[in-house]
Amino acid sequence: MKNILIVGIGTGNPEHLTVQAINALNTANVLFIPTKGEAKAQLAGIRRDIVSRYVTRADSRVVEFAVPVRQTAERSYHHSVDQWHAAIATAYERLLLEELVEGQTGAFLVWGDPMLYDSTIRIVERVRALETVAFDYSVIPGITSIQALAASHRIPLNLVGKPVEITTGRRLSESFPQRSETAVVMLDGEQAFMKIDDPDAWIYWGAYLGTEQEIVISGRLADVRDDILKSRAEARARHGWIMDIYLLQKGADFEE
Amino acid sequence: MKNILIVGIGTGNPEHLTVQAINALNTANVLFIPTKGEAKAQLAGIRRDIVSRYVTRADSRVVEFAVPVRQTAERSYHHSVDQWHAAIATAYERLLLEELVEGQTGAFLVWGDPMLYDSTIRIVERVRALETVAFDYSVIPGITSIQALAASHRIPLNLVGKPVEITTGRRLSESFPQRSETAVVMLDGEQAFMKIDDPDAWIYWGAYLGTEQEIVISGRLADVRDDILKSRAEARARHGWIMDIYLLQKGADFEE
Repeated sequence: MKNILIVGIGTGNPEHLTVQAINALNTANVLFIPTKGEAKAQLAGIRRDIVSRYVTRADSRVVEFAVPVRQTAERSYHHSVDQWHAAIATAYERLLLEELVEGQTGAFLVWGDPMLYDSTIRIVERVRALETVAFDYSVIPGITSIQALAASHRIPLNLVGKPVEITTGRRLSESFPQRSETAVVMLDGEQAFMKIDDPDAWIYWGAYLGTEQEIVISGRLADVRDDILKSRAEARARHGWIMDIYLLQKGADFEE
Repeated sequence: MKNILIVGIGTGNPEHLTVQAINALNTANVLFIPTKGEAKAQLAGIRRDIVSRYVTRADSRVVEFAVPVRQTAERSYHHSVDQWHAAIATAYERLLLEELVEGQTGAFLVWGDPMLYDSTIRIVERVRALETVAFDYSVIPGITSIQALAASHRIPLNLVGKPVEITTGRRLSESFPQRSETAVVMLDGEQAFMKIDDPDAWIYWGAYLGTEQEIVISGRLADVRDDILKSRAEARARHGWIMDIYLLQKGADFEE
């Protein structure tokens, strides 16, 4: 048997690592680091920094690998993601077959937490289903960008006793402001907050959370949304990539 | 000025602590630990263990304090919580006035993450509003029970590209299965999953996550809900308290 660790590493601040994650990285013979693309390159740099900061065993190896790119032309969203996952599963299968010998452990360093808008767990399950390489795996949680956002803004995510919806830019309009009082938007390439018809809602936005480039803006949606749009565009042009997230909220604690 | 750190410590596994949290605890002159009640007593034990494991500075003090109990008789839920927070704010105000001198730092060790179903941030804001003691504060995220649950079950929280609702037992029926395909229930004293009319939904349940007493059960709701009810009751009787959480899900990845 081989062994795989899926390790959450937080959102760019190397101090987000838990003791459990550090110990896990130190049990691995091989550390897998995805590369490619401008964002990926920066993220790969942060992963390498984490490895050099925390991995104390001298005999482990870093293996960099290219992540296949998602093809979107002439495909539905689901078909596109399904094909993409299949391609990544093939890449993982090869890593497990070629880079690990029996009894060895490999670790994937996952941005944020493997449970949230990340497909490493499902892709590893796909590789298991191929039955071409025998392995077991475990999952180690990490700080998500939601937590980094709330900590930087010093806010609770939920209103007292109320629910929170975590969603995507594509689906925000199904949720806020009609259905949810609190919505966290994690994947938003289209700045869906610009279309929200609730000027009095509050927005807490953040980009590059946990890193030295962190930017946070909060305020009444109608007052700050143009600032956010502008800051986002400028930062994206400057860095060549952006990862951002925001919380929308209406109402207040102790309101029915 | 005095300084307050609101530090997330995870859910009972001392290895959940992040490097950032450990560093924060080591900048504190005083570590505040809530006590009282059987659950609180066990949780206080875990907090003391974390302090003795990670706090290396010799000159910091642990200050234990009693948390006021919430009064529910003849009060609405909101009124009850509001009064309770006011009472805790009075207790915190006293700690800040009596246990810290100017320039010192005090840390509150918060179960899970301060952002999620925890009121330390709002209570600290109440103390600031009293204007009886000048202080600043910051928030350090910690691993939540949602993350511990997903890691133990080795599951992604969300279906591909789909939203997730985080809610309470009281409000579950407003959400699942009609409105949400994935619901995480964090505060549930009434085992609201027993009333869900969707036998084919999947449930992932966990109690005492991250601790040595951890129990996890998963399966088709109709098949496992009685087991969960029984295990929960037995564990609660044995330990004198319980903290549990679960995820309900219907549908599958790549289904519209």
